[in-house]
Amino acid sequence: MAIKNDLILRAARGEKVERTPVWLMRQAGRVLPEYRKVRAKMKGFKELVETPEFACEVTIQPVDSLGVDAAIIFSDILVIPEAMGLPFQMIEAKGPWFEKTVKTSADIAQLRIAEAPDLHYVMDAIKLTISGLNNRVPLIGFAGAPWTIFAYMIEGSGSKTFSQAKKFLYAQPALAHQLLQKITDSTINYLKGQIAAGVDMLQLFDSWAGVLSPEQYDEFAMKYISQICNAITEVPLTVFAKDAHFARVSMGKLNCNVIGLDWTVDILESRKMIGDSKTLQGNMDPCLLYADYATIKKETVKMLKTFGPQKHIANLGHGIYPDIDKDKVICFVDTIKEFRF
Amino acid sequence: MAIKNDLILRAARGEKVERTPVWLMRQAGRVLPEYRKVRAKMKGFKELVETPEFACEVTIQPVDSLGVDAAIIFSDILVIPEAMGLPFQMIEAKGPWFEKTVKTSADIAQLRIAEAPDLHYVMDAIKLTISGLNNRVPLIGFAGAPWTIFAYMIEGSGSKTFSQAKKFLYAQPALAHQLLQKITDSTINYLKGQIAAGVDMLQLFDSWAGVLSPEQYDEFAMKYISQICNAITEVPLTVFAKDAHFARVSMGKLNCNVIGLDWTVDILESRKMIGDSKTLQGNMDPCLLYADYATIKKETVKMLKTFGPQKHIANLGHGIYPDIDKDKVICFVDTIKEFRF
Repeated sequence: MAIKNDLILRAARGEKVERTPVWLMRQAGRVLPEYRKVRAKMKGFKELVETPEFACEVTIQPVDSLGVDAAIIFSDILVIPEAMGLPFQMIEAKGPWFEKTVKTSADIAQLRIAEAPDLHYVMDAIKLTISGLNNRVPLIGFAGAPWTIFAYMIEGSGSKTFSQAKKFLYAQPALAHQLLQKITDSTINYLKGQIAAGVDMLQLFDSWAGVLSPEQYDEFAMKYISQICNAITEVPLTVFAKDAHFARVSMGKLNCNVIGLDWTVDILESRKMIGDSKTLQGNMDPCLLYADYATIKKETVKMLKTFGPQKHIANLGHGIYPDIDKDKVICFVDTIKEFRF
Repeated sequence: MAIKNDLILRAARGEKVERTPVWLMRQAGRVLPEYRKVRAKMKGFKELVETPEFACEVTIQPVDSLGVDAAIIFSDILVIPEAMGLPFQMIEAKGPWFEKTVKTSADIAQLRIAEAPDLHYVMDAIKLTISGLNNRVPLIGFAGAPWTIFAYMIEGSGSKTFSQAKKFLYAQPALAHQLLQKITDSTINYLKGQIAAGVDMLQLFDSWAGVLSPEQYDEFAMKYISQICNAITEVPLTVFAKDAHFARVSMGKLNCNVIGLDWTVDILESRKMIGDSKTLQGNMDPCLLYADYATIKKETVKMLKTFGPQKHIANLGHGIYPDIDKDKVICFVDTIKEFRF
């Protein structure tokens, strides 16, 4: 059966849309009181990710309460290192933490290439969500980009500089490529599994793109993103590399449909660098939602006009912050849905 | 008496140099065993900053043991908020922490505008260092740029997003400007004091430029950097705003001599955006110093050739990481000092 609101899919494919579609990164999250209610029942964040019924419930919440044009499956990019053999914990107010990290060639040899059945709980959550959405809006699946996953597997936690992960690139480039290839193969299996389970679109998140130099990003990140783009042809794919301002020209050459932009790049300059063939996603500063309603409306309309009426999926330039007022989010979404060129 | 090695001052002013000069951000620090020895005698980082004899000693160490072409006074950008009325602690392995932060108009009214005598320990350290350097190389003074200082005064500590500080800009822009002006006035007094104490050159560090959108950076950061540039005319001034790739064209119009570049920007593109009138500083990835000697030499020579023989001060694109091998730093410095075009 056809999806009733397929604006995002059409915009992603570069087809004409009547209005700009909108969704928000981290729309299923602490900004919603109904999310916090489900979350409070869990022992931790991972229980929510690993329990399909709950993941499905929080995935659908923002479609109902924010009125966004797509759902994104509630999960975490770190399920991939775990499926490869490095389990992680999500420590409250601190972030992810890995007991084991990758240090040697033997560590890499021991890692397995993840396959879709290893992540059955994600696939089950996708199937439940597809059924629960009842064709109202598309469901987006996702994975971390290989460099970002690599960075966590070496560093073992978040980091301001990821200097240990970068050290690995400089000190052991051949080993780094071995590990990145294993991550890439796992990611392709995982994304193919998500497609088989029913997602309508996919997004790759390269959260730590900005710590690399342009040359290293090209060698250790774009190479593998490109492999994934070439492997995923069944559904539209978005590549969002945060702080990768220097990679915009290369991004324009990827075999994917949509390029995500953070709020530090100029929209028109990015369009020129990326070219006219891609749909662009973004790029409002998440902190705009701390402003008053009039400012939110004014800046949102300005963003819409700058991107223009076609080949744009409205979004923030990063995940929504947890302490944002839900009504401000609705103001952002409604401004986009009500605007006509 | 004239400074024997004035390469950096000449390069900063755009005068001809026989070879490219070099220094490193955080060159006085944990990378040097002799620094760790002095540091171990202190109760904490702040004791080192506040004791002129020790600050002088660690400032001169890298001139002796790394052979760099300048010293930079050992201090911290957060001495300014402290002098304005917000004391901070430096917590081991965590970073700075402020007991009081700025929340209201009354909080801003209570802050004083810092004057040079408030920071007498920095002035004393500068005078001792000038004497200790005995005209071998120039001494660089510094301060944080107003937006970065503002960010700490609101947030109260480091942060990945500085979302509370950004919230203040969006929610209370008029108050934000009041505070930024007070910080700017304090910073000008402080830098003038450093000049009077004897520094040969100054640098402004805008460490958290990258969390702002281009529009906000223009309104809340560049405006005040520009005031400082116009006020400081006695010695060459460098502006280094990390992750401010979007501000390069505006940086080219500042009334200063040198623009610092981080490692995420392309050198030739930056030269084109900034224009030919400025000297550029940077921009090697600090993680290069984790590589083997041959790679360090090869990449350093490539950087030198890309910048060209004039109007370049070689440096890393950020502060040196504490776990780098001192011999690798020397390899970087020597490669620059030995290279001839």
